[in-house]
Amino acid sequence: VSAADAPRLAADSDLGPVGQLLHDFNREFGEPTPLPDVLAARLRELTRSDDTVVLVAGSGPDAVAVLRLREAIWTTSLEAYLAELYVIPTRRGMGIGRALMVAVMNEAKRRGASTMDIGVDEPDAAARALYESLGFTNRSRVDGPLMYVYEREL
Amino acid sequence: VSAADAPRLAADSDLGPVGQLLHDFNREFGEPTPLPDVLAARLRELTRSDDTVVLVAGSGPDAVAVLRLREAIWTTSLEAYLAELYVIPTRRGMGIGRALMVAVMNEAKRRGASTMDIGVDEPDAAARALYESLGFTNRSRVDGPLMYVYEREL
Repeated sequence: VSAADAPRLAADSDLGPVGQLLHDFNREFGEPTPLPDVLAARLRELTRSDDTVVLVAGSGPDAVAVLRLREAIWTTSLEAYLAELYVIPTRRGMGIGRALMVAVMNEAKRRGASTMDIGVDEPDAAARALYESLGFTNRSRVDGPLMYVYEREL
Repeated sequence: VSAADAPRLAADSDLGPVGQLLHDFNREFGEPTPLPDVLAARLRELTRSDDTVVLVAGSGPDAVAVLRLREAIWTTSLEAYLAELYVIPTRRGMGIGRALMVAVMNEAKRRGASTMDIGVDEPDAAARALYESLGFTNRSRVDGPLMYVYEREL
């Protein structure tokens, strides 16, 4: 990717545009979404704590990743979770998402995480191919069983 | 379930036996595991913060659930994650796991969570049937696509 597309930690001034990106993300997939300003304000709150890290790439920025971190149970390290990854439609297929993912993994590791999880829908072929090419698997061991996300509202 | 099996928040004095339960859980599934005392000490650390809640049932206790909570991104509520659920082999099929799950869901809701996630391996038929009977689904909408957990070590 070009220098302008190199991933970086989001500055406070990125969070307005990032709220717009996350809004557009949900609209693209037909999901209900808070307004961009509401999302930006929420990210401003969350990024005050160490449990939420936002990375961006491109001059818009054109791509965003939101990483969550928390203490693990089985080890004394952190466990990382990729909450969001979005690249605007006109910038896809240029390696920006991959570069952002590599940066996210490095940042998670630098902060003390030893594992990273992602929830992915079955038909999201591009996302699954990207994650698989980066060493992620949806099987709990090699040739082992598939791992599902179960979910409900409370 | 009987009164002795009624789920309750774990007291500090439960965490020693709970460390043993989590250790036995991993041993039963052939996974490497820290020693019981190490797990108990870790849970003592984690439960000092609001992000980790341990519930138990039975006099041993004979069952344990570990709930994680964190701020959500898309709403101002919390999102809950069921990190662990274990019932000792001799007490299975008696409704203890179900009662514990109901207690976990109520506790998560009481603390402000609006959603709850669980990661489940495909062949864990008993766990999947339990979660499905409680309204959890591994599809992102009715008749929608399956949701996978992708994971890697960092």
